[in-house]
Amino acid sequence: MLENKKGDNFSEWYSEIIKKAELADLRYNVQGFLVHRWWSTFIMKKMFEMYKKEFERTGHKEVMFPLLIPKSNFVKEADHAEGFGAQVFWVTEAGTRHKKLEEPLGIRPTSETAMYTMYSYWIRSWRDLPFKRYQEANVYRYEPTTRPFLRGREFFFLEAHNVFETKEEAEAQILEDMEMSKNVLYKELGMPFLGFKRPQWDKFAGSVYTCAADTLSPDGRALQQPSSHFYGQNFSKAFGIKFKDEKKKDKYGWQTTYGPAPWRFMASIISIHGDNKGLILPFSLAPYQIVIIPIFFKGKEKGVLKECKKVAKLLKKYRVHIDDRPEYTAGSKYHDWEIKGVPVRIEIGPQDIKKKQAVVVRRDTSKKHAIKQKDLLKHIKKLEKEILDTLRTRAEKNLKQNIRSANTYSELKNKIRKGGFIKVNFCSIDLNGEKCAEKIKEELQAEVRGERIDKREKIKPGSKCVICGKKASHVVYIAKQY
Amino acid sequence: MLENKKGDNFSEWYSEIIKKAELADLRYNVQGFLVHRWWSTFIMKKMFEMYKKEFERTGHKEVMFPLLIPKSNFVKEADHAEGFGAQVFWVTEAGTRHKKLEEPLGIRPTSETAMYTMYSYWIRSWRDLPFKRYQEANVYRYEPTTRPFLRGREFFFLEAHNVFETKEEAEAQILEDMEMSKNVLYKELGMPFLGFKRPQWDKFAGSVYTCAADTLSPDGRALQQPSSHFYGQNFSKAFGIKFKDEKKKDKYGWQTTYGPAPWRFMASIISIHGDNKGLILPFSLAPYQIVIIPIFFKGKEKGVLKECKKVAKLLKKYRVHIDDRPEYTAGSKYHDWEIKGVPVRIEIGPQDIKKKQAVVVRRDTSKKHAIKQKDLLKHIKKLEKEILDTLRTRAEKNLKQNIRSANTYSELKNKIRKGGFIKVNFCSIDLNGEKCAEKIKEELQAEVRGERIDKREKIKPGSKCVICGKKASHVVYIAKQY
Repeated sequence: MLENKKGDNFSEWYSEIIKKAELADLRYNVQGFLVHRWWSTFIMKKMFEMYKKEFERTGHKEVMFPLLIPKSNFVKEADHAEGFGAQVFWVTEAGTRHKKLEEPLGIRPTSETAMYTMYSYWIRSWRDLPFKRYQEANVYRYEPTTRPFLRGREFFFLEAHNVFETKEEAEAQILEDMEMSKNVLYKELGMPFLGFKRPQWDKFAGSVYTCAADTLSPDGRALQQPSSHFYGQNFSKAFGIKFKDEKKKDKYGWQTTYGPAPWRFMASIISIHGDNKGLILPFSLAPYQIVIIPIFFKGKEKGVLKECKKVAKLLKKYRVHIDDRPEYTAGSKYHDWEIKGVPVRIEIGPQDIKKKQAVVVRRDTSKKHAIKQKDLLKHIKKLEKEILDTLRTRAEKNLKQNIRSANTYSELKNKIRKGGFIKVNFCSIDLNGEKCAEKIKEELQAEVRGERIDKREKIKPGSKCVICGKKASHVVYIAKQY
Repeated sequence: MLENKKGDNFSEWYSEIIKKAELADLRYNVQGFLVHRWWSTFIMKKMFEMYKKEFERTGHKEVMFPLLIPKSNFVKEADHAEGFGAQVFWVTEAGTRHKKLEEPLGIRPTSETAMYTMYSYWIRSWRDLPFKRYQEANVYRYEPTTRPFLRGREFFFLEAHNVFETKEEAEAQILEDMEMSKNVLYKELGMPFLGFKRPQWDKFAGSVYTCAADTLSPDGRALQQPSSHFYGQNFSKAFGIKFKDEKKKDKYGWQTTYGPAPWRFMASIISIHGDNKGLILPFSLAPYQIVIIPIFFKGKEKGVLKECKKVAKLLKKYRVHIDDRPEYTAGSKYHDWEIKGVPVRIEIGPQDIKKKQAVVVRRDTSKKHAIKQKDLLKHIKKLEKEILDTLRTRAEKNLKQNIRSANTYSELKNKIRKGGFIKVNFCSIDLNGEKCAEKIKEELQAEVRGERIDKREKIKPGSKCVICGKKASHVVYIAKQY
């Protein structure tokens, strides 16, 4: 059992799971750099696989660009350089005598400035477009404060960088990105989110606008998950990404990027699905999907273990582990695998052997059923779907309960204290709305997350901004954030 | 067709393939850092998958350690620090104002010194052993000269780091590593190699001894592929990796590492399997396994394309691409896909439609067969195996022809000119044989690759060293190398 409770002290509970489920070790001697143990590495690699399928389905091809980016590349797009400058680690020396390099090389915080010079070589004609590429790459950001799986100096990242002939095609990509987020986060991992177009003051450095998926953490804060950026022609002009159209006229490409971070998905998996016993994993992510615990009685150990192996063989299409550690009690084994989030536990003792059954325990509901061995495979298959459904339904219910509306500033002030998303009428998500957003930030420590793009929400004529009282032009959501 | 011939000017041929098969782009503006395009990224990721299976089969678990290693970690094992010091890139600054870091951070050239402090925390008891972990990680080495896929400053790497209770178990791991090399390189990729125990003067920095697989390049040089290192207790003593044995006595762990580099496998794939038309890929690696070329006749384009799609559907279990680019001739398409090494080409024209057939062309033999559509799937399945077998058989024949024996120094001198491996009697692969090895290096520009570990080759009593004439204690192989 965990020492901390999710509902009482969320932050300590979160840290305790990371340690006890052996997700990461924080004792590595460089600040903000985690050692990822097997359990979390396995989970994140499964997330990469899910995205690989999505990228393939949508015509993205995988590439691999260098880790190091010369300083001169960085400065080509001015806003981007300004936005990321503070976050770059610089390689300045090499070799035994620490020989000074001719030019400082930045470790990629993101790869726009590594990739786009090459794009300008590769893209020549409208026939080369759309040009859709992605890479699986860790990125590095010199963050002042760090928190495991939330904000780090090194994290697991995927980045897609696309070029299109027209503005319309590029903007359609932003919606396709949102669909990929839905397929992975919602459908495969059971994590619902809200899709937003961010206000202008909160866009990615160098973009025209940014869209992102926000999940809701149990402490009532929004957590940004994959984001997409519409670059317009900002980077293509800075890097010379031109093509000849069908009439042989030179044009600049229209660009977008999409950046899902499996590292950060971990944070949502832990906090949304986890409970007071620990992590809860869907089958798709679990390194062990089923753990079999032999219930030993003196003199019957051999027979029980033999039966466990028989059942494991029966279930061999799953990732099954038999926990036969002799020095631990069955009870302490239950706790270990509950903390690690294994979706199904199977207990087998001498009584079960007699009855040709096994006791199956679901991690999500703790429900226990004795199942005849002949029905076991079918039962597990059913659970595979049911557990994911339960996790998704729970998370969805929680998200819905935490979306509330406010018609006045004092109502907003009251409701935001409890956390969640507060829906309000707002003057503008263009730069002229920034002053109202600053008031929200200063007085309520909350942020304007933007207007929904996964759902149409038209403003009613005559609506006023809850902050300044001027004409409201957007329905926006306000939340505290990570 | 390529401009260079493999047999005439191998080096230019190699470079031409890298460019024209779109494997890598060398125009990135940091020396020794390549941009890996889709074609090579796909191939290397498939190699990673093959290794993942091997590591799983042999009980290795995946982890992920940080990219950056503090300088103080590096110096803990003195030989290792000395051996790798010259190759480290140092991060010394971060942020907009290039703030100096407290301690220089090295970018991993290999991860011993990142991992072993954590191992000392994790390993407590004999029950934790064997402890087998691996990571998929690019490594960085400040090499003075670089060559694509042969010697680079950034390359795709896998590293396994294992700890055992006993010396015997650790040494058995070295053989298991060799078996993994065989399963991937020889069985799956058709690349034969010789397995060596390297001489003492050629071991990995910090190891007791090193073993490695050498493939043979068509220019007669040996190319080192995966290597394994037996560390004894060198690192476990430096990093305090101790465990309590069954009698509760403190013991130091016995360690090994294994490092296959898919990046370097690319070099062998290109050079061993490639021919004057370009790359040749086995089905397992090919991004497109089959390319269908519609043979267009005026007015019949639509019908031909429809038939191509029908055939593609028939073969949907394979990675099939229809090259329908209207602006290219069928002939130029053939060349494009030959350069890229696609194992099977299918041509479909109006005549073939009439006969309900397709023309199937093998990349490895250029043989062409008209196959009835109903037999197509079966035929391709057969080719999948046959093409790999042909590639392996060819490579094996070439390797065998290039292993020769020499009984005297002048014979060695003569034979080494033609390249390949020359088998000789040699005084010693311990440090007292180094002088003879230096003579070989200086006078013949060749190296002692070591004694075979994949095959027992006992020295005959009374044999003399071909260099110094003293008592020979090892049969070794000598070759020019990369």
